[in-house]
Amino acid sequence: MIHLLDPAISASSHPVGELLLSELRLMDDARYPWLILIPRVAGAREWCDLPWDQSQMLLAEAHTVANALRRCFDIDKLNVATLGNQVAQLHLHVIGRRRDDAAWPHSVFGRGEPQPYAAETVARHVATLRGELPMS
Amino acid sequence: MIHLLDPAISASSHPVGELLLSELRLMDDARYPWLILIPRVAGAREWCDLPWDQSQMLLAEAHTVANALRRCFDIDKLNVATLGNQVAQLHLHVIGRRRDDAAWPHSVFGRGEPQPYAAETVARHVATLRGELPMS
Repeated sequence: MIHLLDPAISASSHPVGELLLSELRLMDDARYPWLILIPRVAGAREWCDLPWDQSQMLLAEAHTVANALRRCFDIDKLNVATLGNQVAQLHLHVIGRRRDDAAWPHSVFGRGEPQPYAAETVARHVATLRGELPMS
Repeated sequence: MIHLLDPAISASSHPVGELLLSELRLMDDARYPWLILIPRVAGAREWCDLPWDQSQMLLAEAHTVANALRRCFDIDKLNVATLGNQVAQLHLHVIGRRRDDAAWPHSVFGRGEPQPYAAETVARHVATLRGELPMS
């Protein structure tokens, strides 16, 4: 079984790069600095069903990404979540939150419509993030 | 600094028991089998700021709890999240979801009012969960 990105994930996010285990993507929602990690493990759906070495690696990558978000954006809090109710493919959200953002203090999930980025903002964020991350 | 449970967490959940790193509590919301792990680490707010050994241990405990939820309840999906926008103390949600539950396919956060458990249901769930978990 080959790892393929779910079309719903591709359609709602922009590629940032490849970490050792996961693809890293930027959600196309300018309201929050919102990244998703998608482990390149064919058929994976639940974090707890990954082999332990991959499971730990996903955690380590989430921490790395969280710390990069803190360096790149002015954020007050991190939100980390894997839900997968709408897209079954295992993906982990790492979101930088601000006390003045559109959803605070609520979760960002299901609150209002995404606000797509301007193309130049995506390019700038991707470049900034790549500069802070060990990626190919 | 001594680890103390945030009063907002105590008020909205019931004790299940103690794992090696974390307190385990059952959210007082009968709409979903919803557990929270609170690492006994004074002052902890973000998962990525825990020392790596504790961070991994929290992940291992989350997986153990997720698997116990699957054995104890008829669930279709697991949701795992640490938000902390409203309660700063680090706590990790592990929630069993069903395709026919009150919020599906949305996240449970901020959707409707919690539905408190009857006392006998809490006692039954706690006993069932404790039977499936390595805890004191």
